[in-house]
Amino acid sequence: MRLVHPEKHKGKKIVIVVGGGFAGLNTAQTLAKQKDVHVLLIDQRNHHLFQPLLYQVATAGLNPADIAVPIRAQFPDVANIEVHLGRLSGVNLKEQYIVGMTLDGEREIAYDYLVLACGAQHSYFAHPEWEGFAPGLKTLEQATEIRRRILLAFETAENEFDPKLQESLMTFVIVGAGPTGVELAGAISDISRTVLIKDFRRIDPSKAKVILVEAGPRILASFPEDLSARAHRDLLDLGVEVRTNARVENINAEGAKVGDEFLNAKSVFWAAGVQASAMNLDPAVEKDRAGRVIVNDDFSIPNFKNAFVIGDMAAFEMAPGKLLPGLAPAAMQAGRHAGNMILADIRGKNRKAFQYLDKGQMATIGKNRAIAQSGKLKMTGHIAWLAWLFIHVFYLIDFKNRVSVMSQWVWSYMFSKRGARLITEKEWQLKK
Amino acid sequence: MRLVHPEKHKGKKIVIVVGGGFAGLNTAQTLAKQKDVHVLLIDQRNHHLFQPLLYQVATAGLNPADIAVPIRAQFPDVANIEVHLGRLSGVNLKEQYIVGMTLDGEREIAYDYLVLACGAQHSYFAHPEWEGFAPGLKTLEQATEIRRRILLAFETAENEFDPKLQESLMTFVIVGAGPTGVELAGAISDISRTVLIKDFRRIDPSKAKVILVEAGPRILASFPEDLSARAHRDLLDLGVEVRTNARVENINAEGAKVGDEFLNAKSVFWAAGVQASAMNLDPAVEKDRAGRVIVNDDFSIPNFKNAFVIGDMAAFEMAPGKLLPGLAPAAMQAGRHAGNMILADIRGKNRKAFQYLDKGQMATIGKNRAIAQSGKLKMTGHIAWLAWLFIHVFYLIDFKNRVSVMSQWVWSYMFSKRGARLITEKEWQLKK
Repeated sequence: MRLVHPEKHKGKKIVIVVGGGFAGLNTAQTLAKQKDVHVLLIDQRNHHLFQPLLYQVATAGLNPADIAVPIRAQFPDVANIEVHLGRLSGVNLKEQYIVGMTLDGEREIAYDYLVLACGAQHSYFAHPEWEGFAPGLKTLEQATEIRRRILLAFETAENEFDPKLQESLMTFVIVGAGPTGVELAGAISDISRTVLIKDFRRIDPSKAKVILVEAGPRILASFPEDLSARAHRDLLDLGVEVRTNARVENINAEGAKVGDEFLNAKSVFWAAGVQASAMNLDPAVEKDRAGRVIVNDDFSIPNFKNAFVIGDMAAFEMAPGKLLPGLAPAAMQAGRHAGNMILADIRGKNRKAFQYLDKGQMATIGKNRAIAQSGKLKMTGHIAWLAWLFIHVFYLIDFKNRVSVMSQWVWSYMFSKRGARLITEKEWQLKK
Repeated sequence: MRLVHPEKHKGKKIVIVVGGGFAGLNTAQTLAKQKDVHVLLIDQRNHHLFQPLLYQVATAGLNPADIAVPIRAQFPDVANIEVHLGRLSGVNLKEQYIVGMTLDGEREIAYDYLVLACGAQHSYFAHPEWEGFAPGLKTLEQATEIRRRILLAFETAENEFDPKLQESLMTFVIVGAGPTGVELAGAISDISRTVLIKDFRRIDPSKAKVILVEAGPRILASFPEDLSARAHRDLLDLGVEVRTNARVENINAEGAKVGDEFLNAKSVFWAAGVQASAMNLDPAVEKDRAGRVIVNDDFSIPNFKNAFVIGDMAAFEMAPGKLLPGLAPAAMQAGRHAGNMILADIRGKNRKAFQYLDKGQMATIGKNRAIAQSGKLKMTGHIAWLAWLFIHVFYLIDFKNRVSVMSQWVWSYMFSKRGARLITEKEWQLKK
């Protein structure tokens, strides 16, 4: 039975937004309190994640709750937005309905507008069997799993008598030298050389080996060449071994085969390819090699102007061969654009092509160093790191609306807010 | 092969402390930097837990990392203390060695002194099958599991059409009205009536039913009668249904049978009986009904004066029939006493009987109310709650050595400390 939302009968347009990441959240915020639309925001998790700092959770610098907020809590007084914990099993684009949404079984729900913003996952190319040996870093569970593996590797090494095994336990291979891989490698090198060094008696954590493996010719390929060269030198200074033009041939419980060499490493982490989240669309639509839906210049799906795809799930061509980058600011702008195009439709205005406002990009290398680029401005070293820290602390404070945990706790306790409302398990089947 | 620790050959006494809770940690701290002893502190988790605030994690008020610190990080500059992640499979009291300690297989390690401080677990009496339906609250994993169940119950109720199921999803039964049960009941009632109330569209979280079930004639039986009566009234004011003299006959996926009545409740939480952690001691020693080892007046095991049992694992009789209570201050004092008796032995001094310094006890009822008793002093209501808050915030700040997360993060980032170094999974087998 296809559900027609009751608000439809009040003359409102039903907008279904799938995904509460930067893109989907911004669409919902754009549509909040607009009285001619009613929004169903669906996510399979109850929290929005500040992904740029996920590597800090993976390296024990931040708590999971520090970088996550309940999606529901973003719209406390917004009557036209409903948040649902649910998963999609498919979309019928022609008849305009989605399938399978809630905790209590499959349903079909009709929409007037659909915004798909389900993000991306790691892709292990043709080797899904590598995933168990080399977790990626896209979710809070993966971040705590990586944290667990790093900390346990040192604990186990402390107890180990065989020096070869000890070395293998203290070797960390990171596959992929985009921002995530570089930040993870820098942070692991950093904590082993500084944080952990006083805590052990038998091992010397500063002898940990961190090896960053990149298939391409240089790290941080999305940055200008001089910045990526600088980041490369910064990583070497931090003690990270960087291998470019190095292809991973195999990964197993003992380590990773890179080119012809087998690296003995009990911990391998994956920061290489991503793949757009798969979605069962009927009819099938055109996608690129990374599974992203090829969209029009307003993010709508060709031939289905009421359905938008935004964020990491979309391939948006800014110029021939040049895609909109997978950065948080780009996703936020796309989210707002999709929301505005829906409002334009409803109010009888013309749609516009999306214009990307490039705010630049940055990446940290351990603590104290970063590279940043915004238009023609380039920054490196400590200054860039301070800029990075400032922007992220500023964002986080804005994001979590909190300056301190203790004051926040006392305050929230007295004024009835809760910071840590997270459901971090992926499997949320409730006993029935 | 039995290991003799190398420090033994330097003329030091080897002290093995098992358990990094309040009791064991205090023994280790007492022995820290004493040059004639070498301490192996073993725990199956890498963190010490501030258990009195665990119910705050279960109700999303605090992060797991806010109430946990890495045990290892407590002894950064202490050369005579080694911290090991490990589990014990047994103790040979006569020959003075322990069995089975590290991540990489079984070992026997000889000791001169042994201090067992492994705490307690929940006891489901003769019904271990209830555990899956009614988790207890002793570990961080259990706290996040309870948090997950509470939050998911509301999410599921929001999607549910059947009003009976909706009601069952919004009913929470807590078994056992000691401090943990009372605090949990109060906090669930509190968040449903205040925190969650704005977040949902279809359900009214303030209609959640919280039922506290106690087999005995009154709640908080360890407190004076007038205080427990006051706490009872406070709970009723908060909307909690309190049932005393009510025995749980069965628990399943649909709820709990209490006396003759079946309470439909998708969420049941267990805060009733505890059982001392089981430990394979050879020869077997005398234990009480709750599995606690009956100890001498200095916490040593009868006939084995070099082996101590402290904390929730020990039955220490202060007067005939009157046991040392299972409170944090008592465990800390016991830990220090055991450490001091070891030092007395080594230095040729006489052992002393333990004298408990009773600091009193307190319990909160929701926010804004508590009961507290210290000697003849009794406090109730808002004043008692402020006292509770002050003491716990003070402890936590001392404990975590941090006033704010953001300042702590920036600070720790610059000065190389990490707050969130937790391994929260119980199964920590590393791939080998």
